[in-house]
Amino acid sequence: MLNGKNVYLGKVRSSIRELFEYGKKRKAEIGEDNVFDFSLGNPSVPAPAAVREALIDIIEHTDPVALHGYTSAQGDFSVRKTIADYINARFSTSLTADNLYMTCGAAASLTITLNAILNPGDEVITIAPYFPEYKVFTEQAGGKLIAVAGKVGTFGIDVENLKKALSPRTKAVLINSPNNPSGVVYGEEDISLLVKEIKEYSKPHGMEIYLISDEPYRELVFDKDTKVPYIMNYYERSIVCYSYSKSLSLPGERIGYIAVNNKMPEWEEVYAGVCGAGRALGYVCAPALFQQLVKRVYNQTSNISVYKLNRDRLLSALEEYGYEVVKPDGAFYMFVKALEPDAKRFAERAKQFELLLVAGDDFEAPGYVRISYCVSPQMILRSLPAFKALADSYKSV
Amino acid sequence: MLNGKNVYLGKVRSSIRELFEYGKKRKAEIGEDNVFDFSLGNPSVPAPAAVREALIDIIEHTDPVALHGYTSAQGDFSVRKTIADYINARFSTSLTADNLYMTCGAAASLTITLNAILNPGDEVITIAPYFPEYKVFTEQAGGKLIAVAGKVGTFGIDVENLKKALSPRTKAVLINSPNNPSGVVYGEEDISLLVKEIKEYSKPHGMEIYLISDEPYRELVFDKDTKVPYIMNYYERSIVCYSYSKSLSLPGERIGYIAVNNKMPEWEEVYAGVCGAGRALGYVCAPALFQQLVKRVYNQTSNISVYKLNRDRLLSALEEYGYEVVKPDGAFYMFVKALEPDAKRFAERAKQFELLLVAGDDFEAPGYVRISYCVSPQMILRSLPAFKALADSYKSV
Repeated sequence: MLNGKNVYLGKVRSSIRELFEYGKKRKAEIGEDNVFDFSLGNPSVPAPAAVREALIDIIEHTDPVALHGYTSAQGDFSVRKTIADYINARFSTSLTADNLYMTCGAAASLTITLNAILNPGDEVITIAPYFPEYKVFTEQAGGKLIAVAGKVGTFGIDVENLKKALSPRTKAVLINSPNNPSGVVYGEEDISLLVKEIKEYSKPHGMEIYLISDEPYRELVFDKDTKVPYIMNYYERSIVCYSYSKSLSLPGERIGYIAVNNKMPEWEEVYAGVCGAGRALGYVCAPALFQQLVKRVYNQTSNISVYKLNRDRLLSALEEYGYEVVKPDGAFYMFVKALEPDAKRFAERAKQFELLLVAGDDFEAPGYVRISYCVSPQMILRSLPAFKALADSYKSV
Repeated sequence: MLNGKNVYLGKVRSSIRELFEYGKKRKAEIGEDNVFDFSLGNPSVPAPAAVREALIDIIEHTDPVALHGYTSAQGDFSVRKTIADYINARFSTSLTADNLYMTCGAAASLTITLNAILNPGDEVITIAPYFPEYKVFTEQAGGKLIAVAGKVGTFGIDVENLKKALSPRTKAVLINSPNNPSGVVYGEEDISLLVKEIKEYSKPHGMEIYLISDEPYRELVFDKDTKVPYIMNYYERSIVCYSYSKSLSLPGERIGYIAVNNKMPEWEEVYAGVCGAGRALGYVCAPALFQQLVKRVYNQTSNISVYKLNRDRLLSALEEYGYEVVKPDGAFYMFVKALEPDAKRFAERAKQFELLLVAGDDFEAPGYVRISYCVSPQMILRSLPAFKALADSYKSV
């Protein structure tokens, strides 16, 4: 008997994947340009030129034994220091290299963090809609994921819902902002109220509840007045899980970090837990070349104006066609209300118009579909008549 | 309360690490060249020139969106096919791309494999001396590691000891050849007897016992007549965990693979378990650039003749000085009998001669020390008088 849970996880394809595979087939049938595949969250903008230049410079001018050798398990010291200094300058924190742990990307940041803090049966609260792997990661670490619905219509944090979910077993609250799949950013008020609630519940219970912020989309915000609060400035027991996958368009290279807030009294214990969990899960060190890369380009991003262009075009067109859209502040996702109660049926119908949209059911937000607009601006333009026709098809009924 | 086990793992430094840190301090005191640090297993030979050339060529001539994008979770198809074809040509197997899963190196290969096959309480048998992280990885996956002593003096597989350890809870036997820390290669006779024993025990019990071969040192053998048997040709239920860390001197880049023998009836289930375990542990895909690199240089190695030179010089000198050495066939480790019963005391005494050796106790083989000879040939020469003086210090007592 193998490990049944992992065999199952290896066999079930996510419905996002299914849709993507369907899209590949369909493109072969009717042509690449005639299928509007909004299924995957794969950056469509290339890494900035500085990435290519830095990679070549590093490879050409570094002793290969040093370059490709093991770094310490928590990552190269100077890389961690560079990132800590940058965070401090940007968010007025006072982190040191010893608060940072370099990881193989966001998924690793999360699994390591969860394994550091969870004991069997502990609960992790997250806000729906949410990235479905949160459940997989939490359960692997022995915990249970409790999803609470976000605010109806805006998908901000609904503090009343959160309040009901807090329990003596709550060990962490896991947030993701800018959010996948809604594109919503939790603003200062959201975070302040969330933190107040966590404090009010945990203090009289003598509990330690950690706030984990999953931030692969932090840099992908499009409007000057959109601020993504840095949770360390709101709550002591906070841990930031970061990845360069989306900001630098390097998702396949697996590079990110965990930052443990050194304002919490037990930060050294938490950091030791991170080191131990990384070790137990088989993370020896984050890819060394890409650690060195990050040291050079930590403050750069891909050309995210393309995503903004896509968002603006799509948003105004969809609203014009009569869709109800949750206004996306960031990431490269848009959450749109389905034109019939069952979003899965709606997404099926969209396929008739060659539109590949993911039903919100996958994110525990039924009644909506997700549009991943990390595609070419040309495809956005080509897809608009299909969105219009889809909307019209409901009007004519 | 954090996860106590992982906090503990993050706090305890391995004694190998301790020794390495001691070495760094000592070098600062008396000079780099006067300390003979044989503590760590870090390749000292640079990656072959082809690695640098291929990396630059790939970076310069590949669309960055494709190059740095996600590959499929199991790895890029063409990379897996290239490796499968290479294994087939070399070992007369008939693997396909769908039997291979690209990983972030050997540690990930092991944690993923163990999480794929183990259920809580399952036992994994390994042969001592063994790499200490085997215990950490097995326990993280919910299993229990049972170490059986290798043959006295040669550290080959002792089938009688193995026989006693087999139980209804045995789910896997985990071998490592060429071996860390002994440098011993399990030859054809070792493997044949091991497999016979596993079959004889599992068949009447109706059990499925997997043979896992951890092979980061496969390419590091020095003599023409040393053959490292390919376990898929001896046993159906076999899984190979491979890494390019040592063969290509890329330990920090985290690239390797798992190969599931397609001769076993349930290979698709095992492979699904591997995919699921990888997913649950947070391994999204192996670093994409290094997957492409492997596709170009899969059949190359660093200049391992340096390790052979080191081995030969050290072996003949130590034997001349009166040490009893386990003949190392491969890897870059040498196991030497301590000159007093307590190897830890022996290793402490060696420090007086500026020799940093790791006591075998860490590998469940007390009475011996490990010498990691992945160092410069000059350091080997410089260290010889110290080894002689250490031996002499016992004679004069």
